[in-house]
Amino acid sequence: MESNEPPTRLWLDDLTVGQEFLSDAHPLDAEQIVAFASEFDPQPFHLDPEAARQSFFQGLAASGWHTMAITMRLLVQSMPFACGIIGAGGEISWPRPTRPGDILRVKSRIDEIRPSRSRPDRAMVLAHSVTLNQADEILQDFRAKLLVFRKEA
Amino acid sequence: MESNEPPTRLWLDDLTVGQEFLSDAHPLDAEQIVAFASEFDPQPFHLDPEAARQSFFQGLAASGWHTMAITMRLLVQSMPFACGIIGAGGEISWPRPTRPGDILRVKSRIDEIRPSRSRPDRAMVLAHSVTLNQADEILQDFRAKLLVFRKEA
Repeated sequence: MESNEPPTRLWLDDLTVGQEFLSDAHPLDAEQIVAFASEFDPQPFHLDPEAARQSFFQGLAASGWHTMAITMRLLVQSMPFACGIIGAGGEISWPRPTRPGDILRVKSRIDEIRPSRSRPDRAMVLAHSVTLNQADEILQDFRAKLLVFRKEA
Repeated sequence: MESNEPPTRLWLDDLTVGQEFLSDAHPLDAEQIVAFASEFDPQPFHLDPEAARQSFFQGLAASGWHTMAITMRLLVQSMPFACGIIGAGGEISWPRPTRPGDILRVKSRIDEIRPSRSRPDRAMVLAHSVTLNQADEILQDFRAKLLVFRKEA
């Protein structure tokens, strides 16, 4: 999938609480799910549809880290921070499995901007990103702490 | 990297608070870093050593999600839960960047076991995993909520 060119480059001064970002769509198939899992999360319910049917997931499911990796790709496309997306960490949960055939989109919102006391050139920005499928069901909920810089004078 | 065969298959009844798991080692190089970033986190500081030198990271750094994905691979190898490693979510942070040449290992500890009140066949297990480099520096701190099942009667 090719992403669109980001519309503009955003510095800290361009961000406001409540600002929202919507990503392009990423269609997911079983081949991508198995390729990611083979390299990073080789468990039967991510690798083999037949074994997955007998598992907790009751069918092939993407690794949660695959859902997160695709989410990151969509964040890079949809949140055009001038200094890039630099994560210090975050909280993640997966309310439901990501399945072959799902079309993923990411909606993000700036929840809080915490200027650094010691370094006036930067802030910690709390961003809340939900990853949705084509039925608008939430596959992943991610609250990130991002380091964002002011435009150099 | 080939991982060793897991020594045994662990059910909920086999887990105790304080139990520890140590993974095999995963040597990381620039080629792996760039391949992952090209697909999932295409930002200059993960793709291009020259551009990375001018960035916040002051040199090529792995995507945090690449560090997490390798960590997951090492968890699958080192925590041989009978039903697999099923994550409901977790908290993650990256105290320092992961660099080309780093050799990653994961140390995990069971911090808490919360039996389900409504479903006696399962518990939420809180596991704390740190990903270390060859100098024992912490690259990633990850606190996971894992769904673990009792052995069927």
